[in-house]
Amino acid sequence: MRQSTMLIPTLKENPADAEIKSHQLLVRAGYIRQIASGIYSFLPIGRRVLKKVEDIVREEMEKIGAHEMIMPALEPSELWKETGRWTTFGSELMRINDRHQREFALGATHEEVITSLVRNEVKSYKQLPLTVFQIQNKFRDEARPRFGLLRGREFLMKDAYSFNDSYESLDETYDKMFEAYSNVFRRCGLNFRAVIADSGAMGGKDTHEFMVLSEVGEDVIAYSDTSRYAANIEMAPVVKTYEKSTEEPKEKEKVATPGQKTMKDVADYLGHDLDKGLKSLLFQVDERFVMVVTRGDHEVNDVKVKNVYDAGMVELASEEDTKRLLGTGFGSLGPIDVPEEVDVIADFAVESLVNVSCGANEEGYHFTNVTPGNDFEVTQYADLRFIEEGDPSPDGEGVIKFARGIEVGHVFKLGEFYSERMNATFLNDQGKAKTMIMGSYGIGVSRTLAAIVEQYHDDRGITWPKNIAPYQVHLLSMNPKKEDQKQLADEIYETLLDAGIEVLYDDRKERAGVKFADSDLFGVPVRITVGKKASEGIVEVKERSTGEQDELDQSEIVDYIKNWYTS
Amino acid sequence: MRQSTMLIPTLKENPADAEIKSHQLLVRAGYIRQIASGIYSFLPIGRRVLKKVEDIVREEMEKIGAHEMIMPALEPSELWKETGRWTTFGSELMRINDRHQREFALGATHEEVITSLVRNEVKSYKQLPLTVFQIQNKFRDEARPRFGLLRGREFLMKDAYSFNDSYESLDETYDKMFEAYSNVFRRCGLNFRAVIADSGAMGGKDTHEFMVLSEVGEDVIAYSDTSRYAANIEMAPVVKTYEKSTEEPKEKEKVATPGQKTMKDVADYLGHDLDKGLKSLLFQVDERFVMVVTRGDHEVNDVKVKNVYDAGMVELASEEDTKRLLGTGFGSLGPIDVPEEVDVIADFAVESLVNVSCGANEEGYHFTNVTPGNDFEVTQYADLRFIEEGDPSPDGEGVIKFARGIEVGHVFKLGEFYSERMNATFLNDQGKAKTMIMGSYGIGVSRTLAAIVEQYHDDRGITWPKNIAPYQVHLLSMNPKKEDQKQLADEIYETLLDAGIEVLYDDRKERAGVKFADSDLFGVPVRITVGKKASEGIVEVKERSTGEQDELDQSEIVDYIKNWYTS
Repeated sequence: MRQSTMLIPTLKENPADAEIKSHQLLVRAGYIRQIASGIYSFLPIGRRVLKKVEDIVREEMEKIGAHEMIMPALEPSELWKETGRWTTFGSELMRINDRHQREFALGATHEEVITSLVRNEVKSYKQLPLTVFQIQNKFRDEARPRFGLLRGREFLMKDAYSFNDSYESLDETYDKMFEAYSNVFRRCGLNFRAVIADSGAMGGKDTHEFMVLSEVGEDVIAYSDTSRYAANIEMAPVVKTYEKSTEEPKEKEKVATPGQKTMKDVADYLGHDLDKGLKSLLFQVDERFVMVVTRGDHEVNDVKVKNVYDAGMVELASEEDTKRLLGTGFGSLGPIDVPEEVDVIADFAVESLVNVSCGANEEGYHFTNVTPGNDFEVTQYADLRFIEEGDPSPDGEGVIKFARGIEVGHVFKLGEFYSERMNATFLNDQGKAKTMIMGSYGIGVSRTLAAIVEQYHDDRGITWPKNIAPYQVHLLSMNPKKEDQKQLADEIYETLLDAGIEVLYDDRKERAGVKFADSDLFGVPVRITVGKKASEGIVEVKERSTGEQDELDQSEIVDYIKNWYTS
Repeated sequence: MRQSTMLIPTLKENPADAEIKSHQLLVRAGYIRQIASGIYSFLPIGRRVLKKVEDIVREEMEKIGAHEMIMPALEPSELWKETGRWTTFGSELMRINDRHQREFALGATHEEVITSLVRNEVKSYKQLPLTVFQIQNKFRDEARPRFGLLRGREFLMKDAYSFNDSYESLDETYDKMFEAYSNVFRRCGLNFRAVIADSGAMGGKDTHEFMVLSEVGEDVIAYSDTSRYAANIEMAPVVKTYEKSTEEPKEKEKVATPGQKTMKDVADYLGHDLDKGLKSLLFQVDERFVMVVTRGDHEVNDVKVKNVYDAGMVELASEEDTKRLLGTGFGSLGPIDVPEEVDVIADFAVESLVNVSCGANEEGYHFTNVTPGNDFEVTQYADLRFIEEGDPSPDGEGVIKFARGIEVGHVFKLGEFYSERMNATFLNDQGKAKTMIMGSYGIGVSRTLAAIVEQYHDDRGITWPKNIAPYQVHLLSMNPKKEDQKQLADEIYETLLDAGIEVLYDDRKERAGVKFADSDLFGVPVRITVGKKASEGIVEVKERSTGEQDELDQSEIVDYIKNWYTS
């Protein structure tokens, strides 16, 4: 494409609101423009790269037998009310009324629409399994849109839905989808991990998030330094065993700790390490109150607390409830002499401790020389803390390290959550009505694009991986006013096009410096510059990512490019 | 694709609300399903045909140097307020508030968004001309969604926008676009006409609608029976000349016409033909009142009245205003003795009349023997009536015939309507700021699909044209329980796939009758049936549209199909 005919506005400065590289570079290089907070236009080269990601996703979906379809963005509220999500989805769901005051959701996801369609059209086990997908803009009214394409309000998504006649069949679809996702992100050139994720309130079974490793990611991943194990830190079980302290338990002692607020303050004041104190937090778990005790240097993982009680809701008890039940505020809680209505549960690490300190449920006082089991009763010991770097990996291989990740994909065994609420049934081979078993599978296509830029850039601009680059070759004529340069560049342009090579041709009458800077910013992997040796038919070829350069004869160019892209 | 894995639900009966063939057949054959009034899902084969149309549109746009981009569906109301369309677009524009109560329009069209983008990014004549397009779902809250995909509320559209530095440059872009549109609809196999259309309130210059000829079309086209001339009937000038009557003017006479309401009633009562009476209507044209007089058998074209006064608004005067100005109601109006503040204008045909009748501006009375010019003054004679079948074609070749059309495309010279209101300027080669000259160009992609079905069907189902068919071959095994049939069909399926032929393989365990009926309904152009001669490697091949059939040896199939599709 001739650059002179295209809308590729480049900027020298970073946009004021762009905090991360992908946001800065995609705007500066003329890939995207913001229309409103979290809402972007994709300019022509932006659409090209987005389409490359989209096509990879499409190919991998088709390979596993998923069929593409298109559902509308306007979704009748009646369907969302059937599953209860009209209420529970909250304010991220954008809502709109038509001229007759009928309510619609603006497509944030399509479980309800597809389930409604399938329950109407699929009647027999013979029509199952069935997997469909679509690629379209989705709408979510994020409270804090930020990071450019990473957290937008209108964004391109691939969503797939599977309908199976059994959980075994769902497992098969899930595994195929898992493999397809791995292929997608591998083909996008991404360094990623599939991590075990929280199935949340969906009532589903297995679920994995595909995380692109990046410092700007909003999620923390716990992964093994030697195996393939990886999980959202919320989900990683702690399998460490603790050796029981051999100290002799002493008599507990109440001591004044005036003005000492934090665990650290108290430990310092009492002259011991953090891990010689107990951390005690009061939670409300559905209708009951639970004191959760961990070692002073550990953090409570509320997902694990929730799982102990198989609860729907876990949150810290209010200061009011805390005072009512324990007679004191948050600062000096402890497990000794708590009323019977409060359960005390403790992390496994606590069981091995002897002669440690804890709050006295009295402002400004702590106990020292406390020994769990002797000085207070524990209803249940369980795995209640967040995993930490250095902990053994849950799969028994290696130790845990942390990384930050950008969630680009999510596969989810939904089970019967939607099909039960929406009465999506089929007749099995015995003629009996059964509830369909569902899965849903999402890829943030525009987010994946941003994640690629996070992993592929340097201080001069983007360094696209081969499969995603908007063009394969960026052809520059250093000085198009010189006839020999213009003529050779024109010739090479036509030759590349004829050879089926995607080429962006900078035919603009700009200074060479501007062209080189723009070219580095755009990030096309291979640059061919027609310059002073044009009259000899010699051009310069340069790799964007390595900076390696060479001279080529005009006749060698097509082969060079073809080899470069297939090697 | 194996049909057994796909969601293609067929129906024997027409849906109750489907009045026209494209709606009936697309639903019955499993291409689309309604989600809400005017809102559809495209099932997998529906998406395939839609994609075929989309790709033809895309190719033709790219051929003329238009660049694809993507603008969001959420459009900030501020932009629409700049052009005034936030108000004037009316209730078809769907509106939505975000969580901070900021107003957005749901993309009905994107003139405002693209103009905003271009005014920010394009500064110099060197960056012009610029043409961009996008293909995406649009939203219009139609008062009466109907006819399936023909008039929906969410539909797929291609919209293109051009920015030029002069009207001459706009003319060039417009002509290229016109040609591209002709190519699109020709490649879709459509019988269509490009017709001169009304530029309406947009203040633009030329505009053409591309109309697919169809009885179910909502527009009437006036076209020449011998030339390429075609116009929306509103827009067709009448170039007929009328011979002045040679009768001697008589003295006018006031006669009672008690109870005679219509032109026809009065003519019958007075014993003359319709064309011997005058039809007089009082219009409000912007702020003034105008009596428009035509021959009794002609119809007033209010677009032409509007053009006489270069007015913004034309409508029939209210009964109240009519009584105030003329002393009587609608039934007996006439041009004699009207007050000075009312203009009297008349169609050219009126000038040639002598001794005709007209209303007396008095309930129950008419004048006879009235001669225009003698008995009343005419401010201006002009072309004011609708063209009729049999009138000479405005281009001087042949006579006019009428046809009904479905509007599938629209090209429009916008001029400066948007760029002026939104201050989109550029510096010309003299360094002076100039307003950009714009054009906009739309194709209803999903509507085009429906229009194709209107022209390609018979009583058994759809008969897709080659370029649009969801698959090139529909392969049926008559009885897949018979091993030889199953095996041969499987083999042919693989062979066709390997040859790059798009094939839908009905491998379902259904009766042959069901398969044949479904196949006719789907409308794939060529059907290959593996039946009783499977053991000899002989299959039946049948053309969907002609019903012609033949036997082929397995080895001949690929060549046969390739020839069929290239011939």
